[in-house]
Amino acid sequence: MEGQTGQTEDNIITYPGGFKANGMNCGIKFKNNDLGAIVSEQECTVAGMFTTNRVKSESLMYSMPIVKKGRARALLVNSGNANTCIGKQGVKDARTAAKALARQLGIGGKEVLFFSTGIIGRPLPVGKIIECMPALTSGLSDNAMPVAQAIMTTDTTQKIVAEEADIDGKKVKFVGIAKGSGMISPKLATMLCFIATDANISQEGLKKTLAASVNTTFNRITIDGDTSTNDSVVVMANGMAGNSQIGCDGELFAKFGNALHSVCAKLARMLIEDAEGATKFLTITVKGSPDTRSAEGIAFAVADSKLVKTAMFGNNPNVGRIIAAVGYAKVKFRVKPDKVALRVNGIECFREGKLLYEEARAIDLKGRFIEIEIDLGSGNEEATIWTSDLSFDYVKINAEYN
Amino acid sequence: MEGQTGQTEDNIITYPGGFKANGMNCGIKFKNNDLGAIVSEQECTVAGMFTTNRVKSESLMYSMPIVKKGRARALLVNSGNANTCIGKQGVKDARTAAKALARQLGIGGKEVLFFSTGIIGRPLPVGKIIECMPALTSGLSDNAMPVAQAIMTTDTTQKIVAEEADIDGKKVKFVGIAKGSGMISPKLATMLCFIATDANISQEGLKKTLAASVNTTFNRITIDGDTSTNDSVVVMANGMAGNSQIGCDGELFAKFGNALHSVCAKLARMLIEDAEGATKFLTITVKGSPDTRSAEGIAFAVADSKLVKTAMFGNNPNVGRIIAAVGYAKVKFRVKPDKVALRVNGIECFREGKLLYEEARAIDLKGRFIEIEIDLGSGNEEATIWTSDLSFDYVKINAEYN
Repeated sequence: MEGQTGQTEDNIITYPGGFKANGMNCGIKFKNNDLGAIVSEQECTVAGMFTTNRVKSESLMYSMPIVKKGRARALLVNSGNANTCIGKQGVKDARTAAKALARQLGIGGKEVLFFSTGIIGRPLPVGKIIECMPALTSGLSDNAMPVAQAIMTTDTTQKIVAEEADIDGKKVKFVGIAKGSGMISPKLATMLCFIATDANISQEGLKKTLAASVNTTFNRITIDGDTSTNDSVVVMANGMAGNSQIGCDGELFAKFGNALHSVCAKLARMLIEDAEGATKFLTITVKGSPDTRSAEGIAFAVADSKLVKTAMFGNNPNVGRIIAAVGYAKVKFRVKPDKVALRVNGIECFREGKLLYEEARAIDLKGRFIEIEIDLGSGNEEATIWTSDLSFDYVKINAEYN
Repeated sequence: MEGQTGQTEDNIITYPGGFKANGMNCGIKFKNNDLGAIVSEQECTVAGMFTTNRVKSESLMYSMPIVKKGRARALLVNSGNANTCIGKQGVKDARTAAKALARQLGIGGKEVLFFSTGIIGRPLPVGKIIECMPALTSGLSDNAMPVAQAIMTTDTTQKIVAEEADIDGKKVKFVGIAKGSGMISPKLATMLCFIATDANISQEGLKKTLAASVNTTFNRITIDGDTSTNDSVVVMANGMAGNSQIGCDGELFAKFGNALHSVCAKLARMLIEDAEGATKFLTITVKGSPDTRSAEGIAFAVADSKLVKTAMFGNNPNVGRIIAAVGYAKVKFRVKPDKVALRVNGIECFREGKLLYEEARAIDLKGRFIEIEIDLGSGNEEATIWTSDLSFDYVKINAEYN
């Protein structure tokens, strides 16, 4: 299994066989790409996971039922406008946009998914999207860069990952693109992620492996603890690699799952690396937990603590704030402070209910990457999550964005 | 019932009959008061509520059992050092400090409560505290200012409230002091609050009315969602007003409860007014809820959202972020977005699942006070909470504080 990530023009990542894509500016944003499409020659098996926020984008209300049926040919996406909190007009606009692409491609309207990201509450300028359909489709190519750019909002870099796996004697390819750098929390983070693969896989198998991958990647990152209304991770598999169909278990399923997990993990890390205003990449591992869920809950309490995040920004090894967050995490397991051990960048600075003051002072936080390791001393389960610090620029970006 | 709040030297607030207090610098901090005492002539009935954080200050481990017994004469407190995550030595140091004050006053060691606030994880310099006992006690007076100053950490102003109530033909007085401006979240907020009253009240009655007051005041504020290890609200009632004893219900109990609630509410508001780096005071009311707990949970999700808080700091009426937070609040009641109505500073900007874009644009957030009113349209219960915005200065204060 080999991986490739592309963020520069010199390092073009191309879509797997049968997929083409494009991105352009349609005028929702002043400049930069704000409209993109990914199109498959053949019908695809699709699976998706979506935000758990009770307030959902009207674009999701349109697309979720199609994903549920498990078949699609193309995907249209706009940035700059979330098509959220619009009411019924938003669902109509999503359908209109999807149909316009379908007509242009000569396929059925129900074969096109539609997603949106950007500002909440402004009517979608669907006319601008429709006008651009001929240009968007005539420019379709195997270059993943333009569509990766088209889904960016406050992202500073496009996020693309390519992966290959040998499955059933065939070289199966994956290309994933993602966007998100704020409003990021588990379930699922304010993000869009679209993965195209030429694997042949059953709908059941695709759903199952996607859920497993997302739960330990996109559901284990947080920037600000805010869950968005538009989060979507969608995989389209067009079967053109020619492997015999992957089911719900066995060796082929495992190989496919490993490759998909790798794509998701790399993209999830890229989201944190590009977190709004971030100067630090924090890896928080909670071990020694009686169950995975408690480990996750405690790791997220630390990761979402404004006091921990500002301390990290200030290169300030304020161990007390980490321990306080461990203490207030809302989990079912009853943490025993006496059994907790804490290491920051490899230095043990809390043990047996005591903060080791001299050791804590010696912690060097100047680097970009910070490792926080918490051992609860109460079991064998663990969870690792990734997050960023809370900086002046985070405040600036989010005070001004509208 | 008349109220008085004091924040300047010109406006001295004096303790009720039988109470004296003092504050001074003992050298834990470089300058400013960091040691204080409140002493009663007569034994007091006491009640207290403490942090729910599983990691608790060693000072609390010492004092909580005494408060539970319900009797005390004096209270000693230091700032600059939280005496937390110290292990057994911390409990010993708390006992040593309390005993030193008891010896100086000629009372029993178990009649003195001891509290701490400040940096976590540094051994308490108990020697400095003991050395200052003669000076601290010789300066006892009825002026509440010095002890109010002695409990400050990042607070920029001392927080004192005086209240009077006519109970059983007697003028009963209350003086409350509080500290806290960061690490503030419900249960209980990083805060200390000490209230002295000359009322005569049973331990049961005092416990019951304190719990009721705290639940709708200190448990309804949040600055950063971080819960501290040292939070304490303690009331001492020395009975010197001479009223017949207040029990657990009836008219006298109601009058006492109203006055105590007023003290707690004013102090809670002062904490938010002095929140770290805050430029805004936000009042978030959630109505139309099937139960109070869901109303509280949704109000806190909005209040703790980094994206809502930064938008408020930027005078940015980003209604979508408020609605997104309503949507992801973890409460048992299933919010129906179609029934939700939102008003910001009196302007309705979301209704029937739709954001009212032009109305939202018209919202003026330039003032210091912002009112967010969310009607869930699903019941008769409500909750109001107070919070602050998230500013550059919040980041600065917390990046540098150690």
